Amino acid sequence: MVKEKRKIEVCFSPALFPAYRNTEAIAVISDILRATSAIVTAFENGVERIIPVGSLEEARAYKEKGFMVAAERDGIVRDFADFGNSPYNFSPEKIAGRQIVYSTTNGTQAIHVADECHQVLIGAYLNFTAVFDWLNSQNRDVIILCAGWKNKFNLEDSLYAGAMCGKLLSTGNYRTICDSAIASMDLWEKASTDLIGYIDKAAQRERLRINRLDDVIEYCHTFDTTRVVPVLEGDHLKNL
Amino acid sequence: MVKEKRKIEVCFSPALFPAYRNTEAIAVISDILRATSAIVTAFENGVERIIPVGSLEEARAYKEKGFMVAAERDGIVRDFADFGNSPYNFSPEKIAGRQIVYSTTNGTQAIHVADECHQVLIGAYLNFTAVFDWLNSQNRDVIILCAGWKNKFNLEDSLYAGAMCGKLLSTGNYRTICDSAIASMDLWEKASTDLIGYIDKAAQRERLRINRLDDVIEYCHTFDTTRVVPVLEGDHLKNL
Repeated sequence: MVKEKRKIEVCFSPALFPAYRNTEAIAVISDILRATSAIVTAFENGVERIIPVGSLEEARAYKEKGFMVAAERDGIVRDFADFGNSPYNFSPEKIAGRQIVYSTTNGTQAIHVADECHQVLIGAYLNFTAVFDWLNSQNRDVIILCAGWKNKFNLEDSLYAGAMCGKLLSTGNYRTICDSAIASMDLWEKASTDLIGYIDKAAQRERLRINRLDDVIEYCHTFDTTRVVPVLEGDHLKNL
Repeated sequence: MVKEKRKIEVCFSPALFPAYRNTEAIAVISDILRATSAIVTAFENGVERIIPVGSLEEARAYKEKGFMVAAERDGIVRDFADFGNSPYNFSPEKIAGRQIVYSTTNGTQAIHVADECHQVLIGAYLNFTAVFDWLNSQNRDVIILCAGWKNKFNLEDSLYAGAMCGKLLSTGNYRTICDSAIASMDLWEKASTDLIGYIDKAAQRERLRINRLDDVIEYCHTFDTTRVVPVLEGDHLKNL
């Protein structure tokens, strides 16, 4: 019997996610600069669990209850928070064995937008092959949700989507009729020969430069530094 | 005095338009397969005005009041309508000097989404240079709104956006820090050497093929067959 190929779709913004609704699919959240890269780093460095929250009010309420809180907006750490959104903040000495509450401009909202899906994974270049291996072992539809920037399309999250789509399609186990998937793969084809050079065009690259937060660009575009796959379980993320 | 450069943005879906809100900008609606191509054709063929309506209920109500109505959903003509969405329907003998009510799956909604902008133009390859000339004479920000497919990103509308962005930026009168604009120009660069071949990958190409409505692909990707520029004025479109 020929196995039915599973469907891949790419959604360029949390605001478009209702148009791609598929509760049977596994969703992969992409917020490369910097939320999903930071979350993956935190699990590699031994964090026990991360509670992603959408609003700063929720984050502040957790802080008042004694939780360790990472919270930023527009790249800037909030005054009540213990630290912000750079992956470098999530060092083993700070976070190993702890649980953290985390709120960012785009990424943590995107996680909640997808929570009707069968499973929600945190995707980054840092855990690219680990996510790919898990997806390819599950025989389910995949939807890659780009966190974007305040509901706008962005380049860096879409490029990750293109890289992952291409890798999944290359197995022969998947098919796509999704124009966003095709566009993201064509953008990846153009960008991948000089990924850091291409990212120089991205609006977020410029925002990080202005705030002197652009020391993470290369790190966040490094493939396969870890095998962790953060997954949403109830209200928190844990390692799969 | 150095003239300040005007801003260009591209919005990939009507559902994302609130994130790009700019009431001072001129909006260009792109629904290449087929609404904006059909509207431009209608004005070239002498239609007096077109009333774009979002819902089929409105379209039906106009029909009952005696209006000529073009209405389709998912490419199929509605039973109460006089004709559907193929540009070939809008022939001079049918429409010259008349006014038409028009409702489609994506394009006519997109027109209304943008109606807070300074001006709303109908863009197609058929009137590409006429729209470009008008924009470049106006010294205003430009936002290109892709009608997409049921709020999803699509390739054919985004490629038009990329072509127009590149042409506007080449004048030196515009700037962009919009990731969608960059992506659309990079996709255009890839597609433009064989546009019809590239469009073969688009989901809408396949939808039209299934419904035997794909005889318009080449026509809808032909540059500069006309100088008409349909513009929204109150509740209707007229030639600029």
